[in-house]
Amino acid sequence: MPVTTIEWLDNKVKLIDQTKLPGELVHLHIDQVEVLGEAIKKLRVRGAPAIGIAGAFGVLVGVQHFNGDDKGKFFSELDRAVTYLRGTRPTAVNLFWALERMRRTAEVNKEKTISQIKLLLFAEAQKIFFEDQETCRALGRHGAALIPNPATIITHCNTGALATADFGTALGVLFTAHTQGKKLHVFVDETRPLLQGARLNMWELMQEGIACTLICDNAAAFVMQRQKIDCCIVGADRIARNGDTANKIGTYSLAVNAQKHGVPFYVAAPISTIDFSLATGREIPIEQRAAEEITDGFGPEGLRRRTAPPNAVVYNPAFDVTPHELITAVITEAGVIRSPYGRHLPELQSRS
Amino acid sequence: MPVTTIEWLDNKVKLIDQTKLPGELVHLHIDQVEVLGEAIKKLRVRGAPAIGIAGAFGVLVGVQHFNGDDKGKFFSELDRAVTYLRGTRPTAVNLFWALERMRRTAEVNKEKTISQIKLLLFAEAQKIFFEDQETCRALGRHGAALIPNPATIITHCNTGALATADFGTALGVLFTAHTQGKKLHVFVDETRPLLQGARLNMWELMQEGIACTLICDNAAAFVMQRQKIDCCIVGADRIARNGDTANKIGTYSLAVNAQKHGVPFYVAAPISTIDFSLATGREIPIEQRAAEEITDGFGPEGLRRRTAPPNAVVYNPAFDVTPHELITAVITEAGVIRSPYGRHLPELQSRS
Repeated sequence: MPVTTIEWLDNKVKLIDQTKLPGELVHLHIDQVEVLGEAIKKLRVRGAPAIGIAGAFGVLVGVQHFNGDDKGKFFSELDRAVTYLRGTRPTAVNLFWALERMRRTAEVNKEKTISQIKLLLFAEAQKIFFEDQETCRALGRHGAALIPNPATIITHCNTGALATADFGTALGVLFTAHTQGKKLHVFVDETRPLLQGARLNMWELMQEGIACTLICDNAAAFVMQRQKIDCCIVGADRIARNGDTANKIGTYSLAVNAQKHGVPFYVAAPISTIDFSLATGREIPIEQRAAEEITDGFGPEGLRRRTAPPNAVVYNPAFDVTPHELITAVITEAGVIRSPYGRHLPELQSRS
Repeated sequence: MPVTTIEWLDNKVKLIDQTKLPGELVHLHIDQVEVLGEAIKKLRVRGAPAIGIAGAFGVLVGVQHFNGDDKGKFFSELDRAVTYLRGTRPTAVNLFWALERMRRTAEVNKEKTISQIKLLLFAEAQKIFFEDQETCRALGRHGAALIPNPATIITHCNTGALATADFGTALGVLFTAHTQGKKLHVFVDETRPLLQGARLNMWELMQEGIACTLICDNAAAFVMQRQKIDCCIVGADRIARNGDTANKIGTYSLAVNAQKHGVPFYVAAPISTIDFSLATGREIPIEQRAAEEITDGFGPEGLRRRTAPPNAVVYNPAFDVTPHELITAVITEAGVIRSPYGRHLPELQSRS
């Protein structure tokens, strides 16, 4: 059973504080929108699908304590929560998609009573949660068919149970292949600056008993040069209509190196990650994060040893965009999509 | 004036403990071979040319306190120091080259008195030191001619004053271009795992007033994709006869990305870095370093927060090999060498 990263429990959002992993397993119990927003901004909860679920639960948190029968006030409270949560992170589209589902659920039921609307919002949030579980399972099955046996694989950033409501997207594919008895060895990029690979992928893979080796991001090319790598597999934060894919910074470098070495490069993501409104990846906004993630990234809080001079100028984009021509296939819950993405991805729009 | 990284002072090796930078500027005064060897192993002194000088000074440290006139014992003391120092780091060839010069100096003068041999060893070590200064200056001049004005450049690992007896190799090229009035902006890869870029390049470039921006290694490809980069410039730890170049892990990934984006990729290194005995880079031994450099790399000593689960398997090669076909030119003190390297590099052998 995968670890439960996020769930709705006792009228609160219960989630693992992922910034504490792998050292400590700490759960947060959140019943204020601002606290949830802070958890999203600080990457206590992260991974595009999990952020979507956190957003939906965040809307519940925002309206559940609303008292009275002033529907105008109720809707302005709801709008306030949605607007605030939309602003927490700019790149992963699943957040906007989940918030829009919540907003629309209230909107189309606005003639109902406030307590009925609250119940319907609760049902919609749970639906988003359970749909993500089913999505992970279907995506895992489709993707596992692409994994040979035995297989040596490189991954980048965390895309496992900690990033979703189930066992993950890209890592879910590997968990499925492992369950099918395939013998895997996974090279795990540490994923600077926040080390989601070192801290989270290694933890998840070791718990499942899958052989894994931690490497620095900049060693992936050397690994591809010196040994047979069967594929790279990564997740996505936003996919444009033409297949261009925004994902954790370093994904593009890995894809360029995969192409150079003839290694298939797979993106595993639910259909909700596809932004059908964007023609190309150029239009995807790239989140810029604080310099301190790079310069003061490690060590116990308050005792961090700075790793750059004072006043160093830092450029810290959280994501990059991999052009579609470097992507061998996009693995979704509806199946494996191949080039030309500009034709095949839009066919999924009716299923989103 | 560049910072003095290493020098012979009061019968000791005086060197900057680079593991303490940029937080503290600490000098060590070493008069025991084993302490010097530990400083090399722990990267307190690093950079291929500086390691060569440290090796030469290390031989002095090893024999200077020798008393008596038993020449057999003197030579066995010398051999012990050379053999021990040879084993401190396996990849940078400058160390072996400098140790061999010291050994040979003693060997060809073995008929002289011990105190005469000591003096000749001292002179040879100082010669290696001053030659490196001249080498840096000449290399800087040749390389600066390749840098346009203005220029945006990406570097990887430290190749400045801290890596040499003068202002550096790859960084020395940039310092020269800056002195010539060229307007530079340098993107500095942080260089995991030991962050020589973040800690040392940023420090050196900021001291010289050159505009520089720190990025994670895995962001270099994205930077090349989104803006005009005029060139990448790196150092080298060992260059095979055909031009294949061993340098800090991540160099190969950067070179692949440079090729993909049509960015010239320059290697700047003294001729002593060329190992004329090796036909290709396949023969260069790659140093494997401790897992803890990756998993426990940051924070004050004793208070490091582990960034991977206990018992995580780690692969930590200190270097990779960039094949010659990805290298636009090798910048040496004798001039700029271009393909076919297999013909042009061996022509430098008489000058080494």
